[in-house]
Amino acid sequence: MTAANNAISIERSLNKKTKPAQDQLGFGIYFTDHMFVMDYSVEREWHNPRITPYQPIVLDPAAKVFHYGQTIFEGLKAYKTEDGGIQLFRPRDNFARMNRSNDRMSVPELDIDVAIAALEQLIAVDQDWIPDLPGTSLYIRPFVIATQATLGVSPSENYQFIIIMSPVGAYYPEGINPVKIHVESHYVRAVVGGVGEAKTAGNYAAALKSQQAAKEEGYTQVLWLDGTQHKYIEEVGSMNVFFKINGTVVTPALNGSILAGITRNSVIQLLKHWDVPVEERVLSIEELYEAGRNGTLEEAFGTGTAAVISPIGEMNWNGEKLVISEGVTGQLSKSIYDTLTGIQTGAVADPFGWVKKVEVSEG
Amino acid sequence: MTAANNAISIERSLNKKTKPAQDQLGFGIYFTDHMFVMDYSVEREWHNPRITPYQPIVLDPAAKVFHYGQTIFEGLKAYKTEDGGIQLFRPRDNFARMNRSNDRMSVPELDIDVAIAALEQLIAVDQDWIPDLPGTSLYIRPFVIATQATLGVSPSENYQFIIIMSPVGAYYPEGINPVKIHVESHYVRAVVGGVGEAKTAGNYAAALKSQQAAKEEGYTQVLWLDGTQHKYIEEVGSMNVFFKINGTVVTPALNGSILAGITRNSVIQLLKHWDVPVEERVLSIEELYEAGRNGTLEEAFGTGTAAVISPIGEMNWNGEKLVISEGVTGQLSKSIYDTLTGIQTGAVADPFGWVKKVEVSEG
Repeated sequence: MTAANNAISIERSLNKKTKPAQDQLGFGIYFTDHMFVMDYSVEREWHNPRITPYQPIVLDPAAKVFHYGQTIFEGLKAYKTEDGGIQLFRPRDNFARMNRSNDRMSVPELDIDVAIAALEQLIAVDQDWIPDLPGTSLYIRPFVIATQATLGVSPSENYQFIIIMSPVGAYYPEGINPVKIHVESHYVRAVVGGVGEAKTAGNYAAALKSQQAAKEEGYTQVLWLDGTQHKYIEEVGSMNVFFKINGTVVTPALNGSILAGITRNSVIQLLKHWDVPVEERVLSIEELYEAGRNGTLEEAFGTGTAAVISPIGEMNWNGEKLVISEGVTGQLSKSIYDTLTGIQTGAVADPFGWVKKVEVSEG
Repeated sequence: MTAANNAISIERSLNKKTKPAQDQLGFGIYFTDHMFVMDYSVEREWHNPRITPYQPIVLDPAAKVFHYGQTIFEGLKAYKTEDGGIQLFRPRDNFARMNRSNDRMSVPELDIDVAIAALEQLIAVDQDWIPDLPGTSLYIRPFVIATQATLGVSPSENYQFIIIMSPVGAYYPEGINPVKIHVESHYVRAVVGGVGEAKTAGNYAAALKSQQAAKEEGYTQVLWLDGTQHKYIEEVGSMNVFFKINGTVVTPALNGSILAGITRNSVIQLLKHWDVPVEERVLSIEELYEAGRNGTLEEAFGTGTAAVISPIGEMNWNGEKLVISEGVTGQLSKSIYDTLTGIQTGAVADPFGWVKKVEVSEG
């Protein structure tokens, strides 16, 4: 598909929604006035890119997404800068990962330039939806769904690529705060050879039961161990996870069953920039607990687009509790959080080339 | 939900579709004139059961099914008997399994009696869609999708339970025939502790890439090994699998990562009824190949609702080919196929209580 024969058409909403109060946004509850849609067929490949009023998706009940789960998503954010500008954080990396997920799930590849152009145009159309209260942002959800209406188990011949956007509130309205984590010893999120590395719906559905059980016991998230031996640390909830042990920051290496988080990668680059020792390697829950018992486990935190940094104050593994950093946010965790959110919102200089300014000539 | 306060409403289609020719049906391509729909909300639980004209599903783009994959399905068939009657095969077992899948995926339980009543009424309304050419049937696809339109990763507060139906052609229009199977050594379908036992969309999406690669090399299906050691046989494609070794029929035991097939269970009961030795146990691919090499592997076949019995004539494991039963359908495989399909269509007596006659007073 080339931009020339596939210019993005725009149909503007005639019924603008009332915007919610910026201190009442929550996460993924309200959506902007418009959405982006593009179709795929075997004959025409990706075609008909269009911005339309935010509206329901209409699908045959036999559409494959309902039955065989061929769907991929991404999550990223747009921020209002102090000078009124708009910027995205590493959008190209999100769409590159989307294509890796697409490949694993037999979904056709997207043209990253087309996707970014579509996103920028959608943001321009809905720019007055980007909140500017500290900590708020515009959460962006690109996703692909399989739409062919036949029940044979095979890759779909039709897809839709859609982008919706939601103004989201401050993750920490009262300041960054540690969470309690339950180490899951029974259920498994993913295994090497499976689809754990892909940002696909089934991975999230598979995690719900364990997550609910942890919540009922007062834990915010689940820490997942590997699916083969239940020994090695993989992720926490839908975040990657880092531990500062004896001055060195350790995070599980990408092994095929762990999501390659963009915040994860940013944290690693930032730590290297700061000359803080950082290791991507296998890390067993036993090694971690031993570090906790002998006092060398200094900090722990999750990383993801929603929270950016989520400090971990307590863990529970088969009944053995581990309090980390005295249950408060560690100094390094706080520095990473301040720096990353500062770069994202334009308050801190970006030496990494992560920020992409969005031009919004139209309003 | 009680039947009394929740009677099924019926809205009949005013535009009946033209029915396809019975020798051109294929699988899951054409759908009947009506569908069944029921809604779930936290406040009202399952409510508003209704038969409507077959029509698109209209969902907010943020509906959780698109993002986090909370969806369950089932597959069963209705058959026309020689005397013009209609019968289902073990429908209660399908809905019981659906509830086990629902539990694993944090989806609210269905009332099995309500589901069966809904299905019988839908069949009555669309009874003239059941084909009667030998080998044909009406394939029934009940499914649940998460419809709440918020992006938080948590179980949905809203669902729809839907039944659609598709007249399907003979699986073996030219007689039952063996297939070639590729043993998958790299990719993994499921692992113990995961969701392999649930009939949920993500399991099928996860299988597509391997399945496509096998097809390109001339194989019909993939044989899955366990996700932990890649040593033990689990399933073949989306079927369970059986091997006759030295007079004993062996099938992998249900370990949590294998789907508890209803055809699988029927085959086991039938073999016991026939006094054929049958074992549910772990079976390694090495043991199977050793039996193949030393001549004690007599037959192999997959079991599932679509094909009922799918004989396996050849396997390929890391380049080592194994021809089974000289590449033709084994005698036991053929007997099981004839008996099961005979019971399903009413041509053979049912000593197991598997068949459920459908009353169709209305037309």
